[in-house]
Amino acid sequence: MSEAAQTLDGWYCLHDFRSVDWTAWKMLSSDERQAAIDEFLGLVEKWNTAQERKEGSHALYTIVGQKADFMMMILRPTMEELNEIETEFNKTKLAEYTIPAFSYVSVVELSNYLPSDEDPYQNPQVQARLYPILPKAKHVCFYPMDKRRQGNDNWYMLPMEERRELMRSHGMIGRKYAGLVKQIITGSVGFDDYEWGVTLFADDVLQFKKLVYEMRFDEVSARYGEFGAFFVGNILAEERVPQFLQV
Amino acid sequence: MSEAAQTLDGWYCLHDFRSVDWTAWKMLSSDERQAAIDEFLGLVEKWNTAQERKEGSHALYTIVGQKADFMMMILRPTMEELNEIETEFNKTKLAEYTIPAFSYVSVVELSNYLPSDEDPYQNPQVQARLYPILPKAKHVCFYPMDKRRQGNDNWYMLPMEERRELMRSHGMIGRKYAGLVKQIITGSVGFDDYEWGVTLFADDVLQFKKLVYEMRFDEVSARYGEFGAFFVGNILAEERVPQFLQV
Amino acid sequence: MSEAAQTLDGWYCLHDFRSVDWTAWKMLSSDERQAAIDEFLGLVEKWNTAQERKEGSHALYTIVGQKADFMMMILRPTMEELNEIETEFNKTKLAEYTIPAFSYVSVVELSNYLPSDEDPYQNPQVQARLYPILPKAKHVCFYPMDKRRQGNDNWYMLPMEERRELMRSHGMIGRKYAGLVKQIITGSVGFDDYEWGVTLFADDVLQFKKLVYEMRFDEVSARYGEFGAFFVGNILAEERVPQFLQV
Amino acid sequence: MSEAAQTLDGWYCLHDFRSVDWTAWKMLSSDERQAAIDEFLGLVEKWNTAQERKEGSHALYTIVGQKADFMMMILRPTMEELNEIETEFNKTKLAEYTIPAFSYVSVVELSNYLPSDEDPYQNPQVQARLYPILPKAKHVCFYPMDKRRQGNDNWYMLPMEERRELMRSHGMIGRKYAGLVKQIITGSVGFDDYEWGVTLFADDVLQFKKLVYEMRFDEVSARYGEFGAFFVGNILAEERVPQFLQV
Amino acid sequence: MSEAAQTLDGWYCLHDFRSVDWTAWKMLSSDERQAAIDEFLGLVEKWNTAQERKEGSHALYTIVGQKADFMMMILRPTMEELNEIETEFNKTKLAEYTIPAFSYVSVVELSNYLPSDEDPYQNPQVQARLYPILPKAKHVCFYPMDKRRQGNDNWYMLPMEERRELMRSHGMIGRKYAGLVKQIITGSVGFDDYEWGVTLFADDVLQFKKLVYEMRFDEVSARYGEFGAFFVGNILAEERVPQFLQV
Repeated sequence: MSEAAQTLDGWYCLHDFRSVDWTAWKMLSSDERQAAIDEFLGLVEKWNTAQERKEGSHALYTIVGQKADFMMMILRPTMEELNEIETEFNKTKLAEYTIPAFSYVSVVELSNYLPSDEDPYQNPQVQARLYPILPKAKHVCFYPMDKRRQGNDNWYMLPMEERRELMRSHGMIGRKYAGLVKQIITGSVGFDDYEWGVTLFADDVLQFKKLVYEMRFDEVSARYGEFGAFFVGNILAEERVPQFLQV
Repeated sequence: MSEAAQTLDGWYCLHDFRSVDWTAWKMLSSDERQAAIDEFLGLVEKWNTAQERKEGSHALYTIVGQKADFMMMILRPTMEELNEIETEFNKTKLAEYTIPAFSYVSVVELSNYLPSDEDPYQNPQVQARLYPILPKAKHVCFYPMDKRRQGNDNWYMLPMEERRELMRSHGMIGRKYAGLVKQIITGSVGFDDYEWGVTLFADDVLQFKKLVYEMRFDEVSARYGEFGAFFVGNILAEERVPQFLQV
Repeated sequence: MSEAAQTLDGWYCLHDFRSVDWTAWKMLSSDERQAAIDEFLGLVEKWNTAQERKEGSHALYTIVGQKADFMMMILRPTMEELNEIETEFNKTKLAEYTIPAFSYVSVVELSNYLPSDEDPYQNPQVQARLYPILPKAKHVCFYPMDKRRQGNDNWYMLPMEERRELMRSHGMIGRKYAGLVKQIITGSVGFDDYEWGVTLFADDVLQFKKLVYEMRFDEVSARYGEFGAFFVGNILAEERVPQFLQV
Repeated sequence: MSEAAQTLDGWYCLHDFRSVDWTAWKMLSSDERQAAIDEFLGLVEKWNTAQERKEGSHALYTIVGQKADFMMMILRPTMEELNEIETEFNKTKLAEYTIPAFSYVSVVELSNYLPSDEDPYQNPQVQARLYPILPKAKHVCFYPMDKRRQGNDNWYMLPMEERRELMRSHGMIGRKYAGLVKQIITGSVGFDDYEWGVTLFADDVLQFKKLVYEMRFDEVSARYGEFGAFFVGNILAEERVPQFLQV
Repeated sequence: MSEAAQTLDGWYCLHDFRSVDWTAWKMLSSDERQAAIDEFLGLVEKWNTAQERKEGSHALYTIVGQKADFMMMILRPTMEELNEIETEFNKTKLAEYTIPAFSYVSVVELSNYLPSDEDPYQNPQVQARLYPILPKAKHVCFYPMDKRRQGNDNWYMLPMEERRELMRSHGMIGRKYAGLVKQIITGSVGFDDYEWGVTLFADDVLQFKKLVYEMRFDEVSARYGEFGAFFVGNILAEERVPQFLQV
């Protein structure tokens, strides 16, 4: 039996992708639409307050292509809060005009932590990574992934030393993109269908392609990576929500 | 031909996942909604009575993410009773406002039982595991799984002695989580699409991730585990049902 | 090239799984519902007559879980008759309140027949198996399956002698369940997506799990079996149809 | 690099499978239904005229099981004509009461042609196969297929000589069914999701099973065949259309 | 670790496939339909203006078979513009009568560029390929694809020299079709579910089949190609839009 890496775990995370039912939305009067938008922005305002209090974070992005129209990414200290936020959104007027497209449940995770601290959760750098305030980057990229367990390419049968070495060189690629791409890894073993979620933020959307493509030639991805669906999008600032929903 | 392990089989089990059609639900008058909630709680009351009489057990959990809004897990002595409960729910008013999201049919199973008793079904410890009263844990995790039969990784071609040894070390991991995670294994060969269902209960939701992740490095999972969808949720106490459904 | 086994082929077979649209069904007046039930029972009466005349057979089962609410299994001498029965059902009032959930098209098949007779179709025992009257067992289990053709596990590349030997030992397991489980094998190569359909009948539903689980350790299943979805259900006697559909 | 076989290509081919929305269809008045049937038969009459002029061919079959209710198979000299016929059908009244179930786009193909002619397209036998008038056989079977490219079983890495030899013995099986099963192979590389479509016609539906099953033991299918969904059906003569659609 | 090829990246690209809801479309008055068509043609007019200004390009094709009724392919300098065009279309009247069928997000890519220029983006030939004006070819073919990472057939584990050599001979096939098939490769790593999109344009639709089939025997496709769905269609000139939508 191979040894499992220790992880540090931070805020719980819900990625909630929605399509807009534009036909039904247009049937509302403009007053009704405005009320629905105001109600939604009221929710976002509550999320902003939580974020200011360091009780979570969130991000809104429109999604390109038919997979979804927009995505809400929500971070919170407990699974119950994620559930409440999701249910609260589901009960809004706006939600009546959205169609669930995809969601992902996970928890912010640091897995390549080297145990130098006595209590790493007190380390400010670790805290900043486990409880991140999501950046206002122009673009987002999300995909879930597994480590492969297939014939000779079985990640979970490798000795820990080999996995550690492979992950180290894998991490080097990520570091080359420091300042260009911010990467948030969330663990989802036991929570959702893949083992990890990867959320990337960048002001230059092309950096997503460059980073993921370069990593694909690294043995960790080349031999051991199994990828789910990819979503790419553009930031939806609160003040642009009314325009996005204007019909 | 490899020898099949003997199993002890207890109550039949239905996991029934539902999404709420919030838009339609909101169209009801608040009296109609209350009547629907009362009718549903009346059903739950009957389930409570059955549980007090040790004629079954049940649990209600809300589910995080878009896969479902809530889950009913029902244990009963016969397949007919499961079917009746499912149909009775389907005929309720509340069911008109839910959308089937996923279900799983299985039977509580003890497979690593070592035959010391003459009639193990009379052993009180065995009885407690075959006919369990579901705990009121804060969180639930459910996933179905298969043992792999692929090229050199074919569980069903291993000699029984090897399987027994692998399962023993696998079980050791589970035991490390005693007191933190309660595990109910249900067999579904011949009943549903995977071979087993795994239902975990814990007050600390992170223990699901730790347990499943640690097991993934164990050869039984690493080489032989094939996993279906994962569902994670929070307990829905009866008294919280009206609040959950309030719009 | 490996030699194909000879098969004897009997009645054509349609498994037709349906979900009930309970919400719409409840919107009917009780008179309309009664008329729909009566019309359906009239169809079943025609099927009974055909069965008495040995011109086919049929069975009705409710299905446990969300995959379907009930299943009609129909045997007839020709593919045209199956099609007519299906279309006749589709035109009934009841069908308006059902949603197609799954179907399977096949033909009753004896494949391990050893050619001792000159015309085996005249052998009464063979006739009884090719043109079976379906039993009124309490439970049904249905699943489609393929023989694997993958790398070193390629059933269709084995010499006939080896396949025959493997099937012989496989059949031994089935025979252990004689009196407990009745098994009807239907061939569907060229008719539907898998190569065979397996329909099991038993009064003790646990025997399905025991039989299928024991077989899974047999090389024929362990190395060569690929299984589709599993459906399990309880007998729906004609006289219980009104109660099943009562709302 | 292995050499690609030369193909001769004939008429373009659309298989268009539809389910009938019987509930909506019954809501029409019988006059409206008759008008819809007449309009559809008018379309078929135009197709008949095209067929008489050797400008294409077509066939109508009802399909057994829930996959579809009927199938239109259309052959035409250009892709544009297929598109026009499809769109023309989509705009009919009858189409409002059908639900698209599956379709397949391909072109009639002769691939094992040995180049003896200077211009094979002038050879009358070749013409008869590339521009076939579809037979009025009682039954149809359709399935799409690929040649496998997997590990050691990679058709496209075999030398042409070996592929030619394998296909020759494969073709021998087909020839054993001459007079019993008519086979139309259509190529769909670049047009649809599989590489070929296979359409079989027979008066004895059991011959589909015998032919496909026998072929499965041939190395071309056993090692290299990947099969999509199978559809089986019964001829729907024009004069039976009103009865088929009568409610 | 294998070295990633350098790519040059041009315009962002959205393939947007739609089905028409003909039943609903017919319910509009002919004036309403005309207004919807005019509004859509107004959009296309804006796209034409952008194309004249070299600020993007676009193409409209009808699709054969049930996968979609038409496809809009849009090229733009930024991901935001793609998103805006998609949303603008979604808010039109016509969009109310279309059903999303498939979409693909990518960026025009030159990957086998040999770095002779100091700034290749200034090279006019490179510019013409990165910012192409889509041809008015009679037919289109689109499919997404991956390079395989499976056991011994792992593209991403090959040395760069070997990949380069394989791609060179692969490109030779494409060049044989110069003048017959125009090929636009778009990269989608990090943007959508496959690694590349391939869009082919030709006046003779059969050339798609010949090209893709010939390539399939080339080692790059035979061993390393994994293909998604294939779409084939006919050009939909603006002036033919009213006729296409006439009911």
